[in-house]
Amino acid sequence: MWLTAIGGKERAPASLAMYFATHDPCSMTPMLSESTVPNANAVVLTSEQLLNHWQGHRRVTRRLIEIYPDDKLFTYSLGGMRTFGELAMEILTMGVPMVKGTISGEWENVSDRSARPRAEMLRLWDEATKQLDELWPQIPAARFQETIKAFGQYDGKAYDLLMYVIDNEIHHRGQGYVYLRTLGIEPPPFYDRS
Amino acid sequence: MWLTAIGGKERAPASLAMYFATHDPCSMTPMLSESTVPNANAVVLTSEQLLNHWQGHRRVTRRLIEIYPDDKLFTYSLGGMRTFGELAMEILTMGVPMVKGTISGEWENVSDRSARPRAEMLRLWDEATKQLDELWPQIPAARFQETIKAFGQYDGKAYDLLMYVIDNEIHHRGQGYVYLRTLGIEPPPFYDRS
Repeated sequence: MWLTAIGGKERAPASLAMYFATHDPCSMTPMLSESTVPNANAVVLTSEQLLNHWQGHRRVTRRLIEIYPDDKLFTYSLGGMRTFGELAMEILTMGVPMVKGTISGEWENVSDRSARPRAEMLRLWDEATKQLDELWPQIPAARFQETIKAFGQYDGKAYDLLMYVIDNEIHHRGQGYVYLRTLGIEPPPFYDRS
Repeated sequence: MWLTAIGGKERAPASLAMYFATHDPCSMTPMLSESTVPNANAVVLTSEQLLNHWQGHRRVTRRLIEIYPDDKLFTYSLGGMRTFGELAMEILTMGVPMVKGTISGEWENVSDRSARPRAEMLRLWDEATKQLDELWPQIPAARFQETIKAFGQYDGKAYDLLMYVIDNEIHHRGQGYVYLRTLGIEPPPFYDRS
């Protein structure tokens, strides 16, 4: 099980498109949230910004796979944890299926995280990068703030479930940094998302 | 240096408050972005949601500090990396100063990450939790999408720099998970943000 409880109490904001679709812009309709917090509904991230943010992180993760010794990818680990190859396969098999499901409500469980050569992993990675760029714009604008059931079992706001997938990547990639260091390999810088 | 390049190309979205402050709601003004991507400006995260998201992650990090052996906090590490105590102090000294600076444009560099007892770290942690809740609503609604210079040296959109601080916490906490596992201690679940 990859999550049971995420996020906190929620208000009811919406996309700008949604706002204009449901409000007469010339009437004095109330703002989105009844919160007394002055900036509660301020837009922190738009759809396009979150995709850019994620692809930036994915470029870092790709660099880790790229420099990871091929013969250690599915054999080396610390503290009884999963290998970096297995963690990277989890990351890979969560990303595109999460976005596809967010769009369509249909969830595919890709559970094959078995060992494969690094070159094959990089090929799958690059394929997913392209797919994410193509799929993301198809997420309906209002969907991010809707409650969905990811992979048929995880209830939550779509934005929170998408963030979960990204955070899970950062979390496990951070573990890959430790594996690499203990193998005597300098990992790529965390801050460089180019 | 904790970052040099984050995020990708940007459009120019704004908070709802900003939108209404600069647009006549009854005229046919264009939408925020000229992107042809249909959901480009959809609101993924509001201010309140990002604070909840962060505090959820901070509860997990607190649990790691709580179960970390006091005598290992500033002595144990892997692969020549920093100790978890040092990483946790970095996390702690980035959070509140980042939010304060985002509000005021004044940046304090708290560089004391020296060893201290776990109980003292938890006290500082809880103090920061309260401060974040109090400070966050004071971030001007339009600020998230403005370009700022964090800590006097890191240029970027405020939302991206705030996300950087959160992602840095997830990254280093993930490394703390490996340290704990190699010490034979079961870390708290990543998915439980309660």
